[in-house]
Amino acid sequence: MRRIALTVQYDGTDYAGFQLQPYQRTIQGELQTALSGLLQHQVRIIGAGRTDAGVHALGQVVSLLTDNPIPDENLLRAANNVLPESISVTRCATVADGFHPCYDAVAKLYSYKIVNRGLRSPFLNRYAWLVPDPLDVDAMAQAAQALVGEHDFTAFAAAGRTTRTTVREVYGIRIERDGDLLEAWAAGSGFLYMMVRIIVGTLVEVGRGALDAPD
Amino acid sequence: MRRIALTVQYDGTDYAGFQLQPYQRTIQGELQTALSGLLQHQVRIIGAGRTDAGVHALGQVVSLLTDNPIPDENLLRAANNVLPESISVTRCATVADGFHPCYDAVAKLYSYKIVNRGLRSPFLNRYAWLVPDPLDVDAMAQAAQALVGEHDFTAFAAAGRTTRTTVREVYGIRIERDGDLLEAWAAGSGFLYMMVRIIVGTLVEVGRGALDAPD
Repeated sequence: MRRIALTVQYDGTDYAGFQLQPYQRTIQGELQTALSGLLQHQVRIIGAGRTDAGVHALGQVVSLLTDNPIPDENLLRAANNVLPESISVTRCATVADGFHPCYDAVAKLYSYKIVNRGLRSPFLNRYAWLVPDPLDVDAMAQAAQALVGEHDFTAFAAAGRTTRTTVREVYGIRIERDGDLLEAWAAGSGFLYMMVRIIVGTLVEVGRGALDAPD
Repeated sequence: MRRIALTVQYDGTDYAGFQLQPYQRTIQGELQTALSGLLQHQVRIIGAGRTDAGVHALGQVVSLLTDNPIPDENLLRAANNVLPESISVTRCATVADGFHPCYDAVAKLYSYKIVNRGLRSPFLNRYAWLVPDPLDVDAMAQAAQALVGEHDFTAFAAAGRTTRTTVREVYGIRIERDGDLLEAWAAGSGFLYMMVRIIVGTLVEVGRGALDAPD
């Protein structure tokens, strides 16, 4: 048996998130179906995290075990031939047996895009949140700094999921404006359920002037 | 009665083209339904052209007649509230009675995007053609110049549609490379059915070295 790590990209718009769910289209489900067919045995995909419905991935690492001797580069090509257009594999490599995409991750990096103008765009609605009100990016960036570091992020997690601990370390948050497109980058050891979007939602309230920066 | 011109954008991926067709989702159909509801009478939309299935628009002009006194800016806002996310209106203005989006157009400008690399991308597949072979952009640009000017473009039209004349004037074709993204721009008085994609397909054959430039 050998362990293979794949780096995947996907447009999550039409999926019910990463995690396998019965009767729903999920990223894990599509990957398992495609790779089980190619490798000719039942494949179990382990992901670096479970993205929510509508969340995209630019470089998410997953892994699987196989005894199929197919060369990595052939598996890469074959996977891209059979996967739906909304999912692609950008890298395929045999890795150490003990590799785990979640526990061996040194950081996770999320990007959240905002279109800051009155008019919506049919080309950006899959990929960005439309906020028509003027946003004070400096105030947002300053407020974000209060979240950097190791904290109990209970206040920034959605109800309904239990984890061993709600303490996470946020390595950095960066907010950049390019015309009417804003991009918020958040890097950390890991994030709680909905934590990134709750952080961004809170920062947008600060940007609108509706909320003071946290002390 | 007054004539209103609208500039629309759309992601055409999930539509059977611009032109109204029974039992199919079309851009004209969606616009007529939305605007008939807002203006409270049956609206007929006249377009500057009929884009094919899967073709997008960045700034297509359409017009309609109405006796509803709603101010243009209110109609713009209301239209964006009721239209599907894949269609938006960027401009709305009352124009001269005799205005016709097709006959009064001074030019039409098409953009055709090509991703020139081996790996497909889930974020570009709606918007670009994946060509994995190396492309000689200089050869493509040079070949394109032979098409500029007034010509009978029968050889570059798909069968199955009749028009009064197959003579069109191409004002210019420009091909630009930005990393592995190629963009071909074609401006002209008008284009025959499928003419732009047949031109681009031909230029890609030249770029691959499979075809000599036309004399």
